[in-house]
Amino acid sequence: MIRPVLWRDNAVVLIDQNALPQQYRRVVCTCYHEVIAAIRDLTVRGAPAIGVAAALAAAQGAQGLSGLPPEEFAGKFNGICAEIAASRPTARNLFWALERMKETLAALQAAGSKNPARGLLAEARRICAEDIEINRRIGREGCALIDDGDSLLTHCNAGALATAGYGTALGVIYAAREAGKKISVFVDETRPVLQGARLTAWELKKEKIPATLITDSMAGFLMQQGRIDKIIVGADRIAANGDTANKIGTYSLAVLAAAHGVPFYVAAPVSTFDFSMKTGAEIPIEERAAAEVTGFRDTVVAPKGMQVYNPAFDVTPASLIAAIITEKGVIAKPDARRIGRLSKGDKNK
Amino acid sequence: MIRPVLWRDNAVVLIDQNALPQQYRRVVCTCYHEVIAAIRDLTVRGAPAIGVAAALAAAQGAQGLSGLPPEEFAGKFNGICAEIAASRPTARNLFWALERMKETLAALQAAGSKNPARGLLAEARRICAEDIEINRRIGREGCALIDDGDSLLTHCNAGALATAGYGTALGVIYAAREAGKKISVFVDETRPVLQGARLTAWELKKEKIPATLITDSMAGFLMQQGRIDKIIVGADRIAANGDTANKIGTYSLAVLAAAHGVPFYVAAPVSTFDFSMKTGAEIPIEERAAAEVTGFRDTVVAPKGMQVYNPAFDVTPASLIAAIITEKGVIAKPDARRIGRLSKGDKNK
Repeated sequence: MIRPVLWRDNAVVLIDQNALPQQYRRVVCTCYHEVIAAIRDLTVRGAPAIGVAAALAAAQGAQGLSGLPPEEFAGKFNGICAEIAASRPTARNLFWALERMKETLAALQAAGSKNPARGLLAEARRICAEDIEINRRIGREGCALIDDGDSLLTHCNAGALATAGYGTALGVIYAAREAGKKISVFVDETRPVLQGARLTAWELKKEKIPATLITDSMAGFLMQQGRIDKIIVGADRIAANGDTANKIGTYSLAVLAAAHGVPFYVAAPVSTFDFSMKTGAEIPIEERAAAEVTGFRDTVVAPKGMQVYNPAFDVTPASLIAAIITEKGVIAKPDARRIGRLSKGDKNK
Repeated sequence: MIRPVLWRDNAVVLIDQNALPQQYRRVVCTCYHEVIAAIRDLTVRGAPAIGVAAALAAAQGAQGLSGLPPEEFAGKFNGICAEIAASRPTARNLFWALERMKETLAALQAAGSKNPARGLLAEARRICAEDIEINRRIGREGCALIDDGDSLLTHCNAGALATAGYGTALGVIYAAREAGKKISVFVDETRPVLQGARLTAWELKKEKIPATLITDSMAGFLMQQGRIDKIIVGADRIAANGDTANKIGTYSLAVLAAAHGVPFYVAAPVSTFDFSMKTGAEIPIEERAAAEVTGFRDTVVAPKGMQVYNPAFDVTPASLIAAIITEKGVIAKPDARRIGRLSKGDKNK
């Protein structure tokens, strides 16, 4: 099983996603600053994987605080969490995981824990293990939406590599395959960072699921030809009304899907919801370096000094989303009411 | 002035568009087979430029036929034209230029020309010179559609580099600038071959027109933000009803434009129309090598052996096109009737 983030020998061990698919190698982070750098430079990416990496990094940082008096421990731990939180702005799971770690510390200290660092590490490992279980549940919930013979389209990578394991959007595809459904997948290369061409292509090939790589600009033409039955993507943050931030290009796909009557699905854990934001207009959109757009790796394509706009995400309004697939159930025609019901724990199909 | 195709010292001299923007260099084709290779490998690209290169290549081929009896000359010349026509399938101007060269030979022979090769060369050079004049006229016609302060979006390269000079879609932008209008341009990088990032970015920088490079997947997000006033692109072939084949990704842009109320314009010479085709469904769509999609120049991004779909063009239905800008006038809300009227020579605004 692909495990892009795990804890081993007091280190956060990551699959180096910048090296894939040419090289499969692990990066060993022995202090939390290295994890922050790895989140920033996309060694680890994908909202759920970032959340897990952040929790483990916080736990790693806490190890250096052992023996401090509770108040000082908490103050320094919150500082570490703030440093980790500043690594990337859009993925909700990053902030969710750090909040959970801070709450865990508060609970441990309230219970008079002698070794809160140990408790924090246990909690971070629990977040990691839970993520895989959540993804399997998302897969089972989403499986019903996929028909035998479907030709699917996905964007970016919402696979095992984007999570602690198994994946969200690709998890649904894996679950459908496990249920005996024959599926083929068109993979958007996903410029500028090419997570589709590099990561999703690699994962689907490894999993022996028939996959065809296209440039992002070809998806509309495929829909025009009637060759896409469904689109399924992940999410970086979902507002209370269902508006969904995801990799740049997702919004265009959703508009094209609506124009062609192709159902558009989002698969994400409940931790991706940000109930503090009423709509997607409030979601901060990260802008990244121009060099991502002017070329790829060492190959520069644009003229020197070319001005660039490089938003890493866009926001798809809930009205374009046929359903959000979570571990707690499928939210069809998502809106604030249906999402609110789910967040209160009701199954809502 | 940028002159991507010209005749000099018995050779077809091309700007090497594969080397841009890093290197600006000329390729000298001393026989028509070299021109065919240059069309095939995109050293010269853009429908009008391909047409001009094809005409010059045919004239070059005709030079080797001097002294042959008329019937043999014509037979071999038609054979050369057929070889050139097989270089690429979609651009209408290629076939249009070769038809015109064959008709020219027939006329020369009917008139008892002693040196039809000389007459053919004169005709090819005329096609080249006319193209620039046509583009200036397209620019003047289209200028009225552009407002001072407009933020435009373009896809691929329909500039000077795509023609004998001046350009079609970018020609309209140059004409608007010459008319004193302040314009800024968002440039789709245009995967897979990156004509936007490499060629349009280079041209607009050279012409000092404010330009910002984006990935193709960002165009929809910009429209959602209300940051695009108009979209203007070129065309490779236009069916009798106005359905337009152009670089892959054009169709997606047109759907997005319609969803956001952004006018979508096509700028092309009348030679781009193919009246033998009632609708765009008949236009042959070239599929190119997988390597264009699996990487960037020498940088490979996808896993080895990845399956790829790589259509070079798509077809935008006329219903999504606000107007087609030609040298004979602007065809608003293009349909078979309005286009037919224009082809009969009437101005039709």
